[in-house]
Amino acid sequence: MHAGPVLIIGSGLLGASLGLRLRLRDIPVYLEDASPLAAALARDLGAGEEPPEDAWEPSLVVVAVPPDVTAQVVSAALERFPAALVTDVASVKAAVEDRLAAHPQRARYVGCHPMAGRERSGAIAADADLFEGRPWVICPRPETREEDIARLRTLALDCGAMPILVEASAHDRAVALVSHVPQLVSSLLAGTLNDAAATELSLAGQGLRDMTRLAHSDPQLWTAIIACNCAAVAPVLRDIAERTAHLATALEEAAGAAQAPGLARAVAAVVAAGGRGVARIPGKHGGAPQRYTDVTVLVPDRPGELGRLFTEVGEIGVNIEDFSLEHSVAQKVGRARLSVSPAAARDLTAALAARRWQAFIEGGEHE
Amino acid sequence: MHAGPVLIIGSGLLGASLGLRLRLRDIPVYLEDASPLAAALARDLGAGEEPPEDAWEPSLVVVAVPPDVTAQVVSAALERFPAALVTDVASVKAAVEDRLAAHPQRARYVGCHPMAGRERSGAIAADADLFEGRPWVICPRPETREEDIARLRTLALDCGAMPILVEASAHDRAVALVSHVPQLVSSLLAGTLNDAAATELSLAGQGLRDMTRLAHSDPQLWTAIIACNCAAVAPVLRDIAERTAHLATALEEAAGAAQAPGLARAVAAVVAAGGRGVARIPGKHGGAPQRYTDVTVLVPDRPGELGRLFTEVGEIGVNIEDFSLEHSVAQKVGRARLSVSPAAARDLTAALAARRWQAFIEGGEHE
Repeated sequence: MHAGPVLIIGSGLLGASLGLRLRLRDIPVYLEDASPLAAALARDLGAGEEPPEDAWEPSLVVVAVPPDVTAQVVSAALERFPAALVTDVASVKAAVEDRLAAHPQRARYVGCHPMAGRERSGAIAADADLFEGRPWVICPRPETREEDIARLRTLALDCGAMPILVEASAHDRAVALVSHVPQLVSSLLAGTLNDAAATELSLAGQGLRDMTRLAHSDPQLWTAIIACNCAAVAPVLRDIAERTAHLATALEEAAGAAQAPGLARAVAAVVAAGGRGVARIPGKHGGAPQRYTDVTVLVPDRPGELGRLFTEVGEIGVNIEDFSLEHSVAQKVGRARLSVSPAAARDLTAALAARRWQAFIEGGEHE
Repeated sequence: MHAGPVLIIGSGLLGASLGLRLRLRDIPVYLEDASPLAAALARDLGAGEEPPEDAWEPSLVVVAVPPDVTAQVVSAALERFPAALVTDVASVKAAVEDRLAAHPQRARYVGCHPMAGRERSGAIAADADLFEGRPWVICPRPETREEDIARLRTLALDCGAMPILVEASAHDRAVALVSHVPQLVSSLLAGTLNDAAATELSLAGQGLRDMTRLAHSDPQLWTAIIACNCAAVAPVLRDIAERTAHLATALEEAAGAAQAPGLARAVAAVVAAGGRGVARIPGKHGGAPQRYTDVTVLVPDRPGELGRLFTEVGEIGVNIEDFSLEHSVAQKVGRARLSVSPAAARDLTAALAARRWQAFIEGGEHE
């Protein structure tokens, strides 16, 4: 717990969610925003109070503004509050540190990145549980004091998040790979749909929907994020551009030729490398991969059917590790997929069948 | 319903699933495969019988072999059974038609594409409900007889699928866009993970997982599919390669410069175009987009908690339109997202809160 008041500068999704969370824990929170309207909205939602007019000093300042202005707001906060620990929540870290490198008070700044994005933004989308169970990266530097790291760990834990210590440039390379490049690739792929006929798009299935979900995001925010992490994003994107161009060339040559000896090798190499890559993503608990069996249940698209399935699965009492529901266009039946331990899959399937569900075990196990 | 026996050539996922389905409807099914072992397995699973030794003729032949050998197997079937309607289930259509263009019996061939893939393959993954609710493309040509189209429509409906008539080259352009290119892009993206450190991958969230799910697929099958559709896949992939290279160049220039005036425009253009593209994908029932509100519920990662949620949501009785469960690495709490009508969201949230769930309404509505 923090003793003194916390000042949050910036009342967007992250700032307002943080304020809501800390207020729930009875920590005094003041909230500022360059936009008085945005600040008023976040305060109305209960994310913090207006700072008092008389002399005061926060023990902790959290800068929660877009990444392209973070360094400048951190810098101002270091000067304005000469005793406070200052942190930020920007999703890029080295660019912020670099811009503060010459600041005489920089030792009191330690960057953070709570990895809790969503597709919607603004205080209106805020909630106190946004950080629950999420990684919360803290970026120590050689001059960082242990007690400051400890305070930021406490902040992360107060928010229900998992503190992880990572040096800024390693953080930026990691998020380029696992977040920024996937985001851009989703947008680049979704961009191909602009010239498609409506009938072509009517054949879209779950694969395309999964691949383009990230493309719904806010252009302004993502432009700022990518601009602050170009050095880490550029080489990964260049690698994809080159391998995509190489594959396109192989396909173009094959399209115009009777025989295309190199085509199969080019396609198989891309698909095989992708398979190896995806296998490296750790399992849901970050430890050794756990293996589950999927039971698929056909759910008629009528009111109440999914609710009935929930009720009956609950009654059957098998522990469900994961659940997804798949729809296709114009589909009158959903396919619900329940992941359970292999030992439980048969019993669940039999119990569902006894309740007249069409349920069957998928062909394999998965992580 | 089909009068005479159906011969299925090829006992992989699609052939065996089709056999299982037709057998359930008491339609006589014979099953052949170039691999006697594969045929025996599919027959053991109940997907069909061994063809009799004496003279017989199927009324319908369904060729369910990999796309690169489909035309040759169709050709042989047309010659072997001079009265049968011959169809196939390959996921590319123009290449098959082109290779049969000179066949004197080609009028008796009409191509199909039941759009029911999954990441696993082989008869062992087969199920009679694989086609349930899926689009089933039928590709008529000028010489195709109406009665043959009617018979294939019946076949699709017998399988629970939705017949859709599309000319072969239009089909191939559509699947390049909505299936083949997303598949390759997922593999190309997942390929970037091969050089990543384990700590970098530990920050992976739901976005990367969604974007790389397709990359789990079988290299051999996808190589055959892409090779048969290079003409349609190549221009879409080339477009992505060029836009990716353009963006990479903008990022590289910005990474080495103090000012990068063109960067923001380049990134914003990609993200905005992606947003417009994804908005064109039709809603789950293919009609006007329906808008739902998401209620997020925090589910402790303890045995029985998801089952308890299912039970209680069932008891509350709200109609759930969609459901997803989100995990992060090392996360001890899952975030279940229930999509309901906006009118029902408040009641559901209140009812869940009364049962001590942490439930809250997401900030916006969505399709």
